[in-house]
Amino acid sequence: MSRVLVHNFSISLDGFGTGEGLSFDAPFGHAGQRMHEWMFETRMWHTMNGEPGGGEGVDNAFAERHEHGVGAEIMGRGKFSPEHGPWVDLGTDAEWRGWWGPNPPFHTPVFVLTHHPRPDLEMEGGTVFRFIDASPREALELAREAVGGLDVRIGGGPTVVRDFLAEGLIDVAHIVQAPILLGRGVRLWDGLEGLESRYDIEAVAAPSGVVHLTLTRR
Amino acid sequence: MSRVLVHNFSISLDGFGTGEGLSFDAPFGHAGQRMHEWMFETRMWHTMNGEPGGGEGVDNAFAERHEHGVGAEIMGRGKFSPEHGPWVDLGTDAEWRGWWGPNPPFHTPVFVLTHHPRPDLEMEGGTVFRFIDASPREALELAREAVGGLDVRIGGGPTVVRDFLAEGLIDVAHIVQAPILLGRGVRLWDGLEGLESRYDIEAVAAPSGVVHLTLTRR
Repeated sequence: MSRVLVHNFSISLDGFGTGEGLSFDAPFGHAGQRMHEWMFETRMWHTMNGEPGGGEGVDNAFAERHEHGVGAEIMGRGKFSPEHGPWVDLGTDAEWRGWWGPNPPFHTPVFVLTHHPRPDLEMEGGTVFRFIDASPREALELAREAVGGLDVRIGGGPTVVRDFLAEGLIDVAHIVQAPILLGRGVRLWDGLEGLESRYDIEAVAAPSGVVHLTLTRR
Repeated sequence: MSRVLVHNFSISLDGFGTGEGLSFDAPFGHAGQRMHEWMFETRMWHTMNGEPGGGEGVDNAFAERHEHGVGAEIMGRGKFSPEHGPWVDLGTDAEWRGWWGPNPPFHTPVFVLTHHPRPDLEMEGGTVFRFIDASPREALELAREAVGGLDVRIGGGPTVVRDFLAEGLIDVAHIVQAPILLGRGVRLWDGLEGLESRYDIEAVAAPSGVVHLTLTRR
């Protein structure tokens, strides 16, 4: 049974999933990498970057789930690029291909939600960025056709996770609350009053300082 | 050494310290009692209400700290009464005396911050409500004069806790995050960007489902 999952989506203690001032050099704006420091210490992250070691505890147990059984990701344009509006044509050589280098860590089709569709972008390692103008439900249908029974990951940013949660399209959401206050940015939880009536919410505090929240649809 | 403390201050997962629609029947508005259910199950609460039993675990360990070594509380008018503006004179017999009955659980002076001072209100059990028009610092000075070396509790609501945190006047804040999404109300964390640089933030998840956050000034 194909499920719809959110993995390793990090927010600040005050609920922001990204900061202000996104740019090509700052995918999370003024948040920098502070919401994701917990992940950089895990064995999963070390392995992904060809390094030995890394923590094997609860942070890693959650982080590793990102890697297994997912056949496609859906992300907002804001996760792919800091730009809004029509894509700037820089020619094939200078074209923006996301923040992840030539071999992004997805290795599946990645559906990028945008009001400005453009041709697919085929990367090394199996990642294909597909740019679609679609509602959450439409995007999910496309993704399900692509996964062949595997799970679909909703990759963010906060607006996309929130929209999918609001429509009840997510089966399990793993949200990581980092002990920092961003003060500004884009909030994850807005407009989700009463979500606890539709989801069980489990919290586990990690020695790293983050809290892992698991929302499981009833 | 007299400290300034926040005890058992409950918020929703989306950061609201109180809901919308406060009234004499609903001190937390549409939140009802849902943010405080964790407390009703503790031995501290049972004992306070003359009942046997109650949980002895981490929720109770935190809850009980409310009871010890505090010589005065500072609260916002919104914690004392749902009304704004000048007090309505209902005569002594019908006068509003807070939500806590004739013997409130403070047993100390309680400084109520309001732009509309009025005479002290002496209750059973040692609680005296003193209505003052004062800044956080001024209120703290008055409270410190009253406590004789004991601690001062900042009792809420969210605006008051936030104001005292913003001014760096709080030594230790115990905030309890309940697994519900209120969607609307008054937020605790607004305007506190970078608070983690001034406070260590520890998180502990309780079996009841809440997360106890302890903010300790560096």
